[in-house]
Amino acid sequence: MRYFRGVNIPSKYIEQAVDQVSSLPGIGRKTALRLVLSLLKRKPEEVTRFAQSLMDLHEHTRWCKQCNNLSDADLCTICSSPYRDAKTLCVVGDIRDVLAIEGTGQYQGKYHVLGGIISPMDGIGPSDLFIEPLIQRAEAGEVKEIILALNATMEGETTAFYLFRKLGPTGVTLSSIARGVAVGGELEYTDEVTLGRSIMQRTPYEVSLKR
Amino acid sequence: MRYFRGVNIPSKYIEQAVDQVSSLPGIGRKTALRLVLSLLKRKPEEVTRFAQSLMDLHEHTRWCKQCNNLSDADLCTICSSPYRDAKTLCVVGDIRDVLAIEGTGQYQGKYHVLGGIISPMDGIGPSDLFIEPLIQRAEAGEVKEIILALNATMEGETTAFYLFRKLGPTGVTLSSIARGVAVGGELEYTDEVTLGRSIMQRTPYEVSLKR
Repeated sequence: MRYFRGVNIPSKYIEQAVDQVSSLPGIGRKTALRLVLSLLKRKPEEVTRFAQSLMDLHEHTRWCKQCNNLSDADLCTICSSPYRDAKTLCVVGDIRDVLAIEGTGQYQGKYHVLGGIISPMDGIGPSDLFIEPLIQRAEAGEVKEIILALNATMEGETTAFYLFRKLGPTGVTLSSIARGVAVGGELEYTDEVTLGRSIMQRTPYEVSLKR
Repeated sequence: MRYFRGVNIPSKYIEQAVDQVSSLPGIGRKTALRLVLSLLKRKPEEVTRFAQSLMDLHEHTRWCKQCNNLSDADLCTICSSPYRDAKTLCVVGDIRDVLAIEGTGQYQGKYHVLGGIISPMDGIGPSDLFIEPLIQRAEAGEVKEIILALNATMEGETTAFYLFRKLGPTGVTLSSIARGVAVGGELEYTDEVTLGRSIMQRTPYEVSLKR
């Protein structure tokens, strides 16, 4: 039996639900209890619909066989779209990164989702990631450029370097998303490394960048 | 079809799950997506157990017939305990308040959970709350003191005043939890109303308050 603030929750079913909900990332037991009680205040059929939507996840959702993106079919909507440029691949760590880049409306190529980044501290090595299929895609010849769009963290840089070594021999052009001062950012408050990079990798001045 | 950052989530089942999870209080669509993806990374049987624990809620959980607290049986563990003082009732708005007070270990009486507080702005009036049974409990004669432990907000004060008027004729002693400077709090940073109250309602100096 677990405790909440040193106190028994007076129902073992609530207790179980709180245990489950608090196992989600970033949800503590206090928040979990609040969420569970809010569910309890709904109609039973609403809670059933809620639970059903979670159970449907595994049954109906797949990973795109080509790019490892989320999908309801074998190939995701982006991989199967004839309007996307198959010559360019954008390598990202997570599905949420795909959504973030899609949100910009600036990218017309396809994606490749690694499903994580190399992180020895968390026991995640290259073999745990969707890297082998990426090399196969690069070797197949259709892809001309691979853009590495990984987080600007130690793990992201490590992963990028690993991919650089693996993809080098395939002859595909490798690029990395630009690092620099954020749009709307102030120089004074930008860290030295970022500011340094943004000076080193300066670009020709253009009056209007297409948004 | 709903959108996330202007982008289609590439699976309608994920979409549905995100819709459901983001309907919980304090959970936005971005957090919901993160939670749903974390569920998706688990084993199917774990997700089933997760969903089942939510479905069990309504099937097995009841409200205590006497005090409206959460319970697995008709009477909650506090109401059915012979060790709790039945002469004292503590009136709270929500079950979480019961847990908070139980957490102090300072209270040996029983509870009465209103299931909310009077809030005309949210359309919650006295008839929506578990007030009538409280009056019946007060009239039954066993209860000698009723402690109003409601939030120190406008709504809480309104509810307290309503209960004061309703419970006055029953002859039960009414008290309210002390308002004052928090333990560990600094006078300088305490608001004027609280500080004023804590001076008005000063208590005789004691060297050690039993914890």
